Amino acid sequence: SLWLYRRYYSNLCQRSLNFTIYLILSLAFIETPSSLSRTADVRYRSPPWEPPCGLTESVEVLCLLVFVADLSVKGYLFGRAHFQKNLWLLGYLGVLVVSLVDWTVSVSLLCREPLRVRRLLRPFFLLQNSSMMKKTLKCIRWSLPQMASVGLLLAIHLCLFTMFGMLLFAGEKQDDGQNKERMTYFRNLPDALTSLLVLLTTANNPDVMIPAYSRNRAYAIFFIVFTLIGSLFLMNLLTAIIYSQFRGYLMQSLQTSLFRRRLGTRAAYEVLSSMSREGEASPQGVGVKPQNLLHVLQKVQLSSFHKQALIEKVRSYGDVPLSASEFQRLFHELDKSGVKEHPARPEYQSPFLQNAQFLFGHYYFDYLGNFIALGNLVSICVFLVLDADVLPGDRNDFILGILNCIFILYYLLEMLLKVFALGLRGYLSYPSNVFDGLLTTVLLVLEISTLAVYRFPHPGWRPQMQGLLSLWDMARLLNMLIVFRFLRIIPNIKPMAVVASTVLGLMQNMRAFGGILVVVYYVFAIIGIHLFRGVIVAPPGNSSLAPANGSVPCGSFEQLEYWANNFDDFAAALITLWNIMVVNNWQVFLDAYRRYSGPWSKIYFVSWWLVSSVIWVNLFLALILENFLHKWDPQSHLQPLAGTEE
Amino acid sequence: SLWLYRRYYSNLCQRSLNFTIYLILSLAFIETPSSLSRTADVRYRSPPWEPPCGLTESVEVLCLLVFVADLSVKGYLFGRAHFQKNLWLLGYLGVLVVSLVDWTVSVSLLCREPLRVRRLLRPFFLLQNSSMMKKTLKCIRWSLPQMASVGLLLAIHLCLFTMFGMLLFAGEKQDDGQNKERMTYFRNLPDALTSLLVLLTTANNPDVMIPAYSRNRAYAIFFIVFTLIGSLFLMNLLTAIIYSQFRGYLMQSLQTSLFRRRLGTRAAYEVLSSMSREGEASPQGVGVKPQNLLHVLQKVQLSSFHKQALIEKVRSYGDVPLSASEFQRLFHELDKSGVKEHPARPEYQSPFLQNAQFLFGHYYFDYLGNFIALGNLVSICVFLVLDADVLPGDRNDFILGILNCIFILYYLLEMLLKVFALGLRGYLSYPSNVFDGLLTTVLLVLEISTLAVYRFPHPGWRPQMQGLLSLWDMARLLNMLIVFRFLRIIPNIKPMAVVASTVLGLMQNMRAFGGILVVVYYVFAIIGIHLFRGVIVAPPGNSSLAPANGSVPCGSFEQLEYWANNFDDFAAALITLWNIMVVNNWQVFLDAYRRYSGPWSKIYFVSWWLVSSVIWVNLFLALILENFLHKWDPQSHLQPLAGTEE
Repeated sequence: SLWLYRRYYSNLCQRSLNFTIYLILSLAFIETPSSLSRTADVRYRSPPWEPPCGLTESVEVLCLLVFVADLSVKGYLFGRAHFQKNLWLLGYLGVLVVSLVDWTVSVSLLCREPLRVRRLLRPFFLLQNSSMMKKTLKCIRWSLPQMASVGLLLAIHLCLFTMFGMLLFAGEKQDDGQNKERMTYFRNLPDALTSLLVLLTTANNPDVMIPAYSRNRAYAIFFIVFTLIGSLFLMNLLTAIIYSQFRGYLMQSLQTSLFRRRLGTRAAYEVLSSMSREGEASPQGVGVKPQNLLHVLQKVQLSSFHKQALIEKVRSYGDVPLSASEFQRLFHELDKSGVKEHPARPEYQSPFLQNAQFLFGHYYFDYLGNFIALGNLVSICVFLVLDADVLPGDRNDFILGILNCIFILYYLLEMLLKVFALGLRGYLSYPSNVFDGLLTTVLLVLEISTLAVYRFPHPGWRPQMQGLLSLWDMARLLNMLIVFRFLRIIPNIKPMAVVASTVLGLMQNMRAFGGILVVVYYVFAIIGIHLFRGVIVAPPGNSSLAPANGSVPCGSFEQLEYWANNFDDFAAALITLWNIMVVNNWQVFLDAYRRYSGPWSKIYFVSWWLVSSVIWVNLFLALILENFLHKWDPQSHLQPLAGTEE
Repeated sequence: SLWLYRRYYSNLCQRSLNFTIYLILSLAFIETPSSLSRTADVRYRSPPWEPPCGLTESVEVLCLLVFVADLSVKGYLFGRAHFQKNLWLLGYLGVLVVSLVDWTVSVSLLCREPLRVRRLLRPFFLLQNSSMMKKTLKCIRWSLPQMASVGLLLAIHLCLFTMFGMLLFAGEKQDDGQNKERMTYFRNLPDALTSLLVLLTTANNPDVMIPAYSRNRAYAIFFIVFTLIGSLFLMNLLTAIIYSQFRGYLMQSLQTSLFRRRLGTRAAYEVLSSMSREGEASPQGVGVKPQNLLHVLQKVQLSSFHKQALIEKVRSYGDVPLSASEFQRLFHELDKSGVKEHPARPEYQSPFLQNAQFLFGHYYFDYLGNFIALGNLVSICVFLVLDADVLPGDRNDFILGILNCIFILYYLLEMLLKVFALGLRGYLSYPSNVFDGLLTTVLLVLEISTLAVYRFPHPGWRPQMQGLLSLWDMARLLNMLIVFRFLRIIPNIKPMAVVASTVLGLMQNMRAFGGILVVVYYVFAIIGIHLFRGVIVAPPGNSSLAPANGSVPCGSFEQLEYWANNFDDFAAALITLWNIMVVNNWQVFLDAYRRYSGPWSKIYFVSWWLVSSVIWVNLFLALILENFLHKWDPQSHLQPLAGTEE
């Protein structure tokens, strides 16, 4: 059983499980409304590739079998009593059973079933495999009541202002702005509600007030007061509530994990001290013998830096048994992050070489490199500005080609000199150098292949396209890579390094949030595909030749040519959902789907707005705030934690 | 000198100073580009009223003289040495001198001077009069370096992506989306920068990616990555930085004011104890005699509740002198907020009246009133829905008129019964009742005047307009007031009461923020008027008769009819600035003012965006977060404060 436990939680097993989860999730791109077309635009789209029946199904059943094996191992390890109490495991079982039944139905109907329930259930596999995500979900569930109270306030605010607005803009005089306002935005109750809901997200801000405000200044007050209360006060209050809930949750989760570690350490201490007691009655009292501990430490999986530090600490005790508090203190070493040591520089004999090594290993040389990269960037920029009004076909890339060639040679030289100064292993031990070297190599390969295909640049150098890429594309790619290479300056600017390290520190916590975002996007995309697939139809006529669509009103879905924002396949649905999450212009989507699909489609879009833009974005802000404050003044957060340790 | 000090800081003096400040600020509405026209729309605007030369000037010079008096009193009170060190006072002096000189020039030129510097300087009077605002400004100045570092990161992000974008969308093939994208959004460097800057605020979100995304899905990645990094990461990081700075600042300011109070209390103790020592050598040791303290307390300006509590506390000590710590502890009473006591209910003799009093004084009766108000709201709502598609002229208000009449009678009855149950003073001691009674009285007056003018409603009740308002307008006003009266339910719902009290608690701190917003708006509006006055000109032709403007492209300033958003007078400038602060569709303004006024206008709009939307809105969010967290878990914030008191 212990062997199974170890084997199950080994890296290999967990990684293959994760791979299976991502495989089954990514099936959505290939399955029947497949996303393998070049564009999602209904006007230009080629008929999508239909996967043969059985291809995705066979992959899917393999994945499901892996999950069955996973569940049975987990069930065996947890034991029957624990299994029945664990809602997540029971849910896992239920989801697997439903998926397998649905799969059987699907295969027996030769993949022509109208509904695939199991696609909706797939994100569950991602959820149940991550403890962080389960914790975050629990935190969201806790803060729901308070969010609901602000939500209620928002709803009352919206309803009252809707009634106000409808009463205000119900004028009978034709020449007044009231009538135009009424016809456009306050025609009836659902219209007025939608207008003000969209105004709450400020997505139709000046437009909604224009007809009335054009006639009388005073009408602007209505809209400004609405936005002020709704968007500035209530929405920010929602942020505050989510943040206050989240803060407590993160603190508690930190304390719980610390408590668990203390418990684990204590248990290890008891086991080890009982071992040493068995062997002999030690004269120095009870305690853990360092040699026992060292023996255990050799077998434990740890990062080599921490292991080294722990072993050295233990050795320093010599032969004296450790008391419980000493044993605990030992593991504080784990909290220290290692300062990475770089391999020693190669030693050269000749003084000239030593001088050169000092010169090129100095950090001023880095600055010179950054400076030259900046020069390269500026040169590209200058040519972009110069070429802005020249048609792409008439541009002359001679000078820029020569310049880039020179710069790339310099980059190569810089790389070689650094390798010479630091040694190859020393060079590779800096992440910035790895980034640099990799891009320089790619640039070099690209440049050489360009030279091989198109020869050396000369004035009026405009060869025809040969091989895979035209010269123009190659030069563009080169330039983009040079721009990308410029990112290496980030660690060199102090404040940016702080900010960048904060962002990198976020990544740890980001996994859970990203996972929840993936789950939410997945579920909504699948539902959207079920509801709105094929709803948006291309306009009649060969519209790609007649783009002047004078007949449609300005600001409508058709005039803005949002044809690609549909739910016809999974990738398109993701982009559509992203666009609504950003909320700008989402009234266009509301209006278009109301016309194409019916008034109830609003519920889908509004609920997606609530889930993604209101809840998730605020959670994300809370995460950033918490991480940043944690980094910025660590003592204010470590105090309560230290308090639990005493 | 002490007399002058007391007189200067008396309520009357400070209030008249505040009034002068608001008077001089509000002059901007009347001065030469006067805002006294009905609309700001250049198409419909009547020529504005020109104030005669000397009218605003005479008011202004009176205000300035008040400020001169204020400054001289302050200078006298502070003393010469302190005056020269205080930058704010020196600035005050400078601003006054400049204003007076400018005023003289203006009068001697008969109000035809080209530039009025003093209008720009007026907000300074508001700033220097509020210590909270000065503190907030200092806090903003402290956090500027860190904001600048994130700003730098944002700028680099923007520049790199602009170059990427220009290289990416420089395609030469005509049928590719690249070319259309290039022509629309990435034509040259300034265009591309503007497009991506606007995308950073998500104001052109789906539009900017549409031409490229319609041809190839992969182009969406570029825009999504840009928005993800810029809008989600970096912008939220900016929020986090502002919040972290602001939090420390608020804490420090609280501690400082607490420290000052302790110092003041201690000094008072020393003075009072030396007084009692002078009189007699007291046997009980040194200390403040309660009777001395009581004597002082009688003269001090305090709210009556706190004064009462303090006096009672002091009396409880009897004749024993107070030690220093007892003296300090006495003033903790000031932190307690008083539970307001309501006047006793009137006592009636007859048991029937007593029963009735119990019945109508019970809070269930409040609930019944809320329920009936809800019913009234629902009835109005139903009629709004029913009448939505009927032209205003054809509506029949008979039933709604009857219903409203009945409801208003009920409200009157409710008010009278409550007055009967609680007594008039008891009734008025609840703020919700005051709100209620006031609106009921107004409703009653309105209803009676409606009945007086138009008689009692009967079927087919459509009288002609008589008197000041038509029946229709009166009914509308009635309905609006009923909707407004419904707000009285807010304190009755628990979570909403919490949130509402948080919002009310904000108001205290809001004053400083509102003041800074006023200053910023004022300065930018005056600059905007100087720069862009008269730049937007009405389209040729009688546009009010020919609104179909088919010739202008969709999404432009002209097509959206944003004519009212100009800088031709102060009120219009404020609304325009508000619309840009909300950032939605601000690219339209950027584009229009570039066309009408020149490319440098972008600098004005972008700096306004930075000041208002980026800095101020984030500060506001920080304020709400801080206040809310303070309210939500008070022990976490009181601990460090309590620590300073020990």
